[in-house]
Amino acid sequence: MQTLEVSLGERSYPIHIGSGLLRDPELIGRHLAGRQVMVVTNPTVAALYRAPLEAALAAPGRRVVFTVLPDGERYKTLASAERVYDALLEAGFDRRCTLVALGGGVIGDLTGFVAATYQRGVAFLQCPTTLLAQVDSSVGGKTAVNHPRGKNMIGAFHQPKAVIADLDTLASLPAVEFSAGLAEVIKYGLIDDPDFFEWLEAELPALLDRRTDALAYAVARACADKARIVAADEREQGARALLNLGHTFGHAIETHMDYQGWLHGQAVGAGMVLAAGYSRHLGWIDDETVARIRRLIAAAGLPTEPPPDMRAADFMRRFVHDKKVLDGRLRLVLLHGIGRAAVHDDFDPADLEAWLRAVLGG
Amino acid sequence: MQTLEVSLGERSYPIHIGSGLLRDPELIGRHLAGRQVMVVTNPTVAALYRAPLEAALAAPGRRVVFTVLPDGERYKTLASAERVYDALLEAGFDRRCTLVALGGGVIGDLTGFVAATYQRGVAFLQCPTTLLAQVDSSVGGKTAVNHPRGKNMIGAFHQPKAVIADLDTLASLPAVEFSAGLAEVIKYGLIDDPDFFEWLEAELPALLDRRTDALAYAVARACADKARIVAADEREQGARALLNLGHTFGHAIETHMDYQGWLHGQAVGAGMVLAAGYSRHLGWIDDETVARIRRLIAAAGLPTEPPPDMRAADFMRRFVHDKKVLDGRLRLVLLHGIGRAAVHDDFDPADLEAWLRAVLGG
Repeated sequence: MQTLEVSLGERSYPIHIGSGLLRDPELIGRHLAGRQVMVVTNPTVAALYRAPLEAALAAPGRRVVFTVLPDGERYKTLASAERVYDALLEAGFDRRCTLVALGGGVIGDLTGFVAATYQRGVAFLQCPTTLLAQVDSSVGGKTAVNHPRGKNMIGAFHQPKAVIADLDTLASLPAVEFSAGLAEVIKYGLIDDPDFFEWLEAELPALLDRRTDALAYAVARACADKARIVAADEREQGARALLNLGHTFGHAIETHMDYQGWLHGQAVGAGMVLAAGYSRHLGWIDDETVARIRRLIAAAGLPTEPPPDMRAADFMRRFVHDKKVLDGRLRLVLLHGIGRAAVHDDFDPADLEAWLRAVLGG
Repeated sequence: MQTLEVSLGERSYPIHIGSGLLRDPELIGRHLAGRQVMVVTNPTVAALYRAPLEAALAAPGRRVVFTVLPDGERYKTLASAERVYDALLEAGFDRRCTLVALGGGVIGDLTGFVAATYQRGVAFLQCPTTLLAQVDSSVGGKTAVNHPRGKNMIGAFHQPKAVIADLDTLASLPAVEFSAGLAEVIKYGLIDDPDFFEWLEAELPALLDRRTDALAYAVARACADKARIVAADEREQGARALLNLGHTFGHAIETHMDYQGWLHGQAVGAGMVLAAGYSRHLGWIDDETVARIRRLIAAAGLPTEPPPDMRAADFMRRFVHDKKVLDGRLRLVLLHGIGRAAVHDDFDPADLEAWLRAVLGG
């Protein structure tokens, strides 16, 4: 097992990465406050990991309750959060309880939001079971539910007590979900870790074979990259915005598709290629750099183009509702090289639209 | 105008207290982030103060939107919060917007909760228009909505950018609401400010006449007392629990009455007399001290007894669901004198129940 630290003063916490962690009573028990434990999960994950986790959680005097929510992004809503509030109050749990998120990003974001808001905040443990959740959503304290008008519109910053990333859970992950997670892994290389980008170019086959040594290296390195950025900017006032590389384009794609058909990571994959392309248009990177980025994203099994029916106007319209728009001003994370991302609002939106029109037609 | 400071490091903020403040464009404008302003209020308050506040907020390039929610504690729900989220997204407001709470505690708590959770937290200005909100709920960053199973079960800590307490709004306040606010004022004297308690014993008639000089003194002193306690313990890990004097009994009364008939402050009034009585039973204060407390609470127009149908068992049953129960252990704020409150969990719940039975019957 490797353990990294997210350094946030009194809110610091460890990320444990390794095999068999969900079966380790000592490791899990170490991070539980109080004697009341609520595990939130979905039917798919429960079928695989409820039994071992339940065994690991069993202890004298400890009450453990499971809440199983329907699977999927469209259940990441206030209504689902209310089901968890109801279950907590039904169980009589007080502010010393611990919520455990067992699942992917939807379960983690939603459970974190409930933990942030139940009785003004209770303890919270992340047990991510997808690659995406292990390298991205479980680290950094962003919690949220969706609103019909936009993703993650209702949320809070609430750091977990610990992240327990059990690599065994990645073995059963469908290929498309594994690829979606790789989009975020590649993103860290592009932002500020060019050596990791090169490692990924060389070792992608081992990752796609789900070799434990490759997974352990990639998850730990991605978490370390994210932890460093989060520690520098917990509340997303500055550097943390770099983590949105590919995401402004990606969210526009997801909204356009009504969150059907593509996973978040797939939209981010295509979004990063667009960010690279526009950076090339601005003259900041060359064609070969764009080609390397596109090759790695394609090799990871991700789309490198937006859906064929999407036009420039579709992107521009979605950008207006994007959270990254500050006081009416569009901001994008763009590239000055591999491992050299920067936040920009100093481009002309009309130029962006014209470029999108040239690339996409329409 | 007097200005106090709530000292919370980078989350510090001023409390402005005086006449005509809601009509002061410079004062209000100083505390607005960005150009998007959403005022949340209710029909009663809107009828009196919407027009002057709207005039004070008008400025070139600033968009001001009002959301008027139904009046009353029973609308302090997630459903009402959703109406505000909807209005914010309808208006296209981003994370640089400012929410303004114009009203009493319900509007302040609810608006604060939306501000805490809209796009993971936006700026927030408290304009309390009741005595209770001016001296208590607007100061300290506690935000919440109710759940069918309990008050304030869903919430967050989220400090406002400023509190603007316009004393003119107290002139139109119904007598019962004014008395309810006095309960919290008296509470500060009991917790740790015996000189203020004596001032209240002498000056209560001037307060009940709503003399501006008396109001200004009482609101400022109560806010200063609360600000000091909050600054020492922002997240209610320790000293802040003292603010719950009378509240554990009071919440039991409110829940028993299904939040109908009595205002929060009335329940706290009766609750403080119970806390004093039980402190007397434990031998920590004498009969004359209990009598002084009861006299001041009665003179403020507050009940000094729980509702006549409430029995010991009703209290004990409600305590189980109270947030102040930590890991199954009941905690009460009790008195060792006027101005000498302390948090206790070192009493025997069976003794408390027996005492309640002796006092209340049943």
